[in-house]
Amino acid sequence: MTYSEKLARRIAGSGSRLCVGLDPRLDRHDGPAGVRAFLEQVIDETAAHAACFKPNIAYFEAMGAEGYAMLADLVKRVPPGVPIILDAKRGDIGATQEAYAKAYFEVLGVDAVTLSPFMGFDSIEPCLRYEGKGVYLLAVTSNPGSADLQQLRSESGRHFYEYVGDFAARAAGLPGDVGFVVGLTNASGEVLDSLPDAPLLIPGLGAQGGDLEALAGAQKAAPNVINVSRGILYAEPEKSFTEKAQDYANRIASVLG
Amino acid sequence: MTYSEKLARRIAGSGSRLCVGLDPRLDRHDGPAGVRAFLEQVIDETAAHAACFKPNIAYFEAMGAEGYAMLADLVKRVPPGVPIILDAKRGDIGATQEAYAKAYFEVLGVDAVTLSPFMGFDSIEPCLRYEGKGVYLLAVTSNPGSADLQQLRSESGRHFYEYVGDFAARAAGLPGDVGFVVGLTNASGEVLDSLPDAPLLIPGLGAQGGDLEALAGAQKAAPNVINVSRGILYAEPEKSFTEKAQDYANRIASVLG
Repeated sequence: MTYSEKLARRIAGSGSRLCVGLDPRLDRHDGPAGVRAFLEQVIDETAAHAACFKPNIAYFEAMGAEGYAMLADLVKRVPPGVPIILDAKRGDIGATQEAYAKAYFEVLGVDAVTLSPFMGFDSIEPCLRYEGKGVYLLAVTSNPGSADLQQLRSESGRHFYEYVGDFAARAAGLPGDVGFVVGLTNASGEVLDSLPDAPLLIPGLGAQGGDLEALAGAQKAAPNVINVSRGILYAEPEKSFTEKAQDYANRIASVLG
Repeated sequence: MTYSEKLARRIAGSGSRLCVGLDPRLDRHDGPAGVRAFLEQVIDETAAHAACFKPNIAYFEAMGAEGYAMLADLVKRVPPGVPIILDAKRGDIGATQEAYAKAYFEVLGVDAVTLSPFMGFDSIEPCLRYEGKGVYLLAVTSNPGSADLQQLRSESGRHFYEYVGDFAARAAGLPGDVGFVVGLTNASGEVLDSLPDAPLLIPGLGAQGGDLEALAGAQKAAPNVINVSRGILYAEPEKSFTEKAQDYANRIASVLG
């Protein structure tokens, strides 16, 4: 089963396209033990309404080796059948990228990883040799700095992110799946139309203020997911994590189906 | 003292512009303990001829939390006054990039880190708030895939990597220093001339086959270093690490001065 099939199956089974982002704010918890207990609770209480989980490795690295071990434990806590996307935005060459692929797909055992495409297709390729795994390439991110490079046009009039889009076709024949990261705040119809029909990971809903309506009609054949991190972890503390996850899953379903 | 001053002082003191890359091949050693003993020996025997060290975090992540802890120990083993560049090629936004900055500059305590500029200047900025620290932005890397995005031209005729070069000017006034990664295999005079006078980290000498002569005349005011990883760690096993480091330092000095 490919990564896309695994994700599509989970979306169908849960009725949810919500990706629950695990981005713990270290200053809001009582040390690493507090972070761990908090995230365990979030996973346990949101899993039923989650298409997938997306831990961002930066927050775990900020706790050093202890945080790295915590991440490995949390990956094991996610129920079987719920894909895990590691948000790592890595990109390097040859043997080094093979080491990243090993770190994430073999040692940690996640289902997909976000990558930076800046070093070119050969930097992506080692992560595509894994059957059943996926990569999400940064295409148009949700921050203002997306305009600095990603949205420039080349001399032939194409946006730089469209060249990233080309990597999906170049990956044909490799066992891994290629998807793209498109920030909701920049997910215009033009952006969505100019990327291939591939799984999209769409951050920016909730705290970042993205408008879900921008995605109406954006759903092609490949399974898309919408990430919410702070909106579930820290917003509206009077609601339970379960309630917030269910609310977001419903809001997303009302637009994307 | 800024990062550039620290590095320039070390180059002057050691007479070396050699950056010793710590990229252990895990299959060549007897488990993590073997990797650790090997790298301790490399550090101890090359430090006198090293301008700086550059561990690539991918290889440590491939050993999981144990590798992450090993990296922290090796950072502490490097003699004081010898800068450490963590090769991480990270890039993310806001609070996430702040978490990476904390992980590397505070928890690990390295002097500089490589970053991917693909998400734009605002993704770099959190790492520039640290006095005495530096970042090296990927500009033109040494792999063939560098042509896929980095070397494209925009509609105004400028290369994509030149927009990355602009980030140095945008960082003026921030306490951290901006440098660039330029692969030796792609370090043409045109590339070097079109980047600002900033510290360059130049990989590709040795196993990757880059030609040092391409750098003749490239040395501007900022301190440049040339990285060698496999050429010292694994090539010519009949020579000592000390001998190989000294040979490379001499070769580099004969061209760059």
